[in-house]
Parts: sequence; C-alpha cells; structure tokens
Amino acid sequence: MTGLKTYAAAQGSRVDRALRRCLPSGRTRPATLHEAMRYSVFAGGKRLRPILCLAAAEACGDDGERALPAACAVECVHTYSLIHDDLPCMDDDDLRRGKPTCHKVYGEAVAVLAGDALLTLAFELVAGSAPVRRHRPAEMVRELAVAAGSRHLVGGQVMDIEGEGSGLGPRELRFIHEGKTAALLTASLRLGGMAAGATPRQLQALGEFGQATGLAFQIIDDILDVTQTSEKLGKSAGKDEASDKATYPAVHGLDKSRREAERLTRAAVASLKPFGGRAARLEQLAAYLLQRDY
Amino acid sequence: MTGLKTYAAAQGSRVDRALRRCLPSGRTRPATLHEAMRYSVFAGGKRLRPILCLAAAEACGDDGERALPAACAVECVHTYSLIHDDLPCMDDDDLRRGKPTCHKVYGEAVAVLAGDALLTLAFELVAGSAPVRRHRPAEMVRELAVAAGSRHLVGGQVMDIEGEGSGLGPRELRFIHEGKTAALLTASLRLGGMAAGATPRQLQALGEFGQATGLAFQIIDDILDVTQTSEKLGKSAGKDEASDKATYPAVHGLDKSRREAERLTRAAVASLKPFGGRAARLEQLAAYLLQRDY
Repeated sequence: MTGLKTYAAAQGSRVDRALRRCLPSGRTRPATLHEAMRYSVFAGGKRLRPILCLAAAEACGDDGERALPAACAVECVHTYSLIHDDLPCMDDDDLRRGKPTCHKVYGEAVAVLAGDALLTLAFELVAGSAPVRRHRPAEMVRELAVAAGSRHLVGGQVMDIEGEGSGLGPRELRFIHEGKTAALLTASLRLGGMAAGATPRQLQALGEFGQATGLAFQIIDDILDVTQTSEKLGKSAGKDEASDKATYPAVHGLDKSRREAERLTRAAVASLKPFGGRAARLEQLAAYLLQRDY
Repeated sequence: MTGLKTYAAAQGSRVDRALRRCLPSGRTRPATLHEAMRYSVFAGGKRLRPILCLAAAEACGDDGERALPAACAVECVHTYSLIHDDLPCMDDDDLRRGKPTCHKVYGEAVAVLAGDALLTLAFELVAGSAPVRRHRPAEMVRELAVAAGSRHLVGGQVMDIEGEGSGLGPRELRFIHEGKTAALLTASLRLGGMAAGATPRQLQALGEFGQATGLAFQIIDDILDVTQTSEKLGKSAGKDEASDKATYPAVHGLDKSRREAERLTRAAVASLKPFGGRAARLEQLAAYLLQRDY
C-alpha cells in the first residue's frame, strides 16, 4: 500500500476527471452559470468527501468505480453549501481557499443560482448510479437528501446563523457541527459503501466512523480557528470568535474541546473494526484529518 | 365527470394534506427554518403543477395515489424557485400571491436556506416513490433534476437576469420561458405519468403537452403583465416592462404573441390524442390555463 499522499492525489485526480465530465462545460448556455459552477468546484478543494466516498467503497471490496457518481455528487453538495454560506446575507466571506468567493466574481444572483444548480446536479448524478445488489440508486438519493436537508446540513447552517451572539448551549452546538460537517461526511462514506453493495453492518460502521470523524474534525477546526492565523488556514481566521459565533472552545473551553476531539478520534478508529485490514485507507484518512497540531 | 373547479379543489386539498405530512412541522428544530418552508409552501399557491401531475397519472390509468410524492415534490421545487427568485439580489419582490415574500418575513439568509431545503426535500420525496413497472424512482429523480437544473429552471433564471436591459433575441427568450416555466410543468406531467407506469408513447405525449402548455402559459402571462393591473395579478404588474426584462410582447409585439399563444394552445390539445377520452382532465386544465382573457 502506497503512502496516503500518493493515494489521495490519485483519487483526487480521478474525482477531478469525473467532475470535469459531469459538469456542463463553461460554454454551455447560459455560460456565466456554468462558468460559476466550474469556478467554485475547481477552486482548489481537497476532495475530502469524494476521497472518503471512494475509500469507503474500497473498504467494502469495490475498486470505487461504481461510487464515482456519488463521489462527484457529495463534492457538488459541499461546494453548493460553501457558495451559499459565503453569501453577504450569511457569513459574508470574500475569500475561500485563498480565492475570491463565487459571489465576489459572478455577483450574488449568479452565486445563489450556481449553488442551486450544483445541489440539483448532485441528485441527478446519484440517481444515475448503477444499481447494485442491496442498494437501489433511489435509496442513495434519499441518503444524500436527508444529510443535505433541513434537519442536517441546511438546518445546521440556520442554527449557526441564529446562534450568533445569543450564546448557544452544548446541544445546539452539537446540532450545528453534526449538521454542517458530520452529516455530509457520513453520507459520503455511506454512499460509497452503498455503491459497493455494503452489508447493513458495514453501513452502520461507516456511519459511526463518519459521525465521530466529522465531529472531531469540526471541533479541531474550531480549535485551530482560535489558535492559528489567516495565512495558514486560507480563510479569515479569528472570524468565528470576532462574530461571537458558537464554537466548541467558546462553549466548552479549549481543554475540554481537545479531550473531546481525542475521544472521538479513538471512537472513529474503533468503529472500523468490522472491516479488518480493508479499512486501512479510512484509518489513514482519519489520521490525516484528525492528527493535526491542535 | 364533475366540473373542473370541484376537481381542482379536491386535488388541491389532497396535495395540501400530503404536503402537510411530508414537510417537517414548524416545531422541528431549527423551528425558524421549518416555519419559513411551511410559510412559503402554504402561502396560497394554486397547486397547478401537482394537479397536473395527478391528472397525468389519471390519464395513464392510475388514481394518482402513487404520484402523490412526485406531486408534492414539484410543488416544493416551484416554491423554492419562487423564494430564490424573489430575493433582493434577484427580482427583489416584496409580495408574492399578495403576501410578504419569504425574505421579508424571515430575512434573506433563512429565505435562501428555506429554498435550499425545499429543493432538497423534493428529491427525498421523489426518491421515496413506490417502484412501478417501467419506471424506477431513480429515473424520476433524474427527470426532476434535469428540469430543475442548470440547463432548464436555474438556467432560465440566469438568462432572465442577464438579459435585463440587454435586448435578448427570440432564441434566448424561448430558453428563458422553456426553462422557467415549461420545464417544470413538463416534468410534473411526466412524473405523474411515470408514477402510473406510463408507456413511452404516453410519456412522449405528456412531454409535448407540457412544452406547449408551459410556453403558451408564459406567453400569456407576459401579455397579461403588460395589459393588467397589480390588484388582479396579486403581484407588482408592469414590473417586467419597467425593468426592461425580456418578455414575449417586448420581443415579438402583442399581436404575434397572441397568435403564438393560440397556436401553442391548439398544439397542446392535439398532443393529448394518444390518451383518447382519458385525458379529459388535462384538456380542461389546459383550457383553464390558456383560455384567459389576453
């Protein structure tokens, strides 16, 4: 097994090629819309969610080929959520991954619509997945829709906005982190598993791994936002604190946040037991995500 | 066969009951989001698209019960598109169906997100359709996603915005009307057909009926916007003209617009031939939509 860097680069390129195929070209009418969609999708994301999706498929004994539509779909959902989160009426961010945000380049109206179109495309892609034993494409659509919907991804963003300055409690904070981060990571993993014909036990394990990894990742992000600089993060650091946004360190303190991140990291690794050695990539990915200097 | 009014009222109530069941309650966390979704969905829409969906299912020999998830889904997509179109960065409308628009009541951020959540819910609903002979739920998801996506619904809105003040040609105007109106009407009809196990020939006919009806409907709307007052329309009349938006009368003149609407109306009726008497409701609905005083 080659190193994680090589693996992630190879899988990232594989996803990029697939995304280039499944996104309409920048010359497709209306050109501005398709340019904006491609601008944000190819703005330098690490393809974390698609790579997790493919790695989950591999853990279930597939080469990931059948999981590619789902892998592209979760990246489309992720990108849409970033475009909308960055809007002036939400987080009002000018930079994302060190580049101007979609609305800064294409204007607010096109940014809203590019997000809408990416979300819609995600469902088109998943619905076009090849049927496999145990899981129908429609079941995969539901999995993605629930994770992206009002009780998880969108709901988390709403609660995040509402919580600004109002001192949210631990339960609301958990809802935000689960919704904004863990839900889509979990769906990415479970969709990869479904595309590979995962057993119920395997799907359950992927779900637990996703929840633990997603929450830990978000808590670490919160910690880093407090402790690092803009340059390293490629976005405006200290922003969460400045706007009095709910974060783990703000609610629980830095020490408790670190302990919780460590506990969740152990839980993530433990959840992979049912896969034996076949989940080595997922373990490496969790280590990459969670063993940061926080 | 009872009158169209009774039929539409009964089907509208049936759809409303189904929508009440499938939308999370206004007390579901986060409450503001779910309230906003319900506010816009229950703001007095005529349920045109769901009623067409159910009538198409009936024309294919079903009682419409299996088409209910799709009927609710097309209404969710329609409502989402209205919420986003009304935003300050787009059409900047304060009123919709005579009531304050979503962002006027809940703020821009929640309005964007309520739209996002309704779009997502639509795919969850369609994916949950019962499998029928000939058409898998995943195929229905694709049908809806293509109609709602960047080449149709969203694309039409982008071209509409870009065309403001720039004097669009007939081809661009057609793209806008097809995308913003005909595509979702057509998908509503075809989804109803699919849920009822329609034959390829029946689906084709429903598609032609939808295209003709949708375009005619939009042309008539354009004409009425020029010739009627705010009070009658329940929205700001003359707005299209004032903002130099592309409309059929602006590009083709009133007379040619009226002739085109009449031609399409005849085409719509002709396309229903394969159904024989079973498409009587669709014929009545087309008459209701298109035989307005324009």
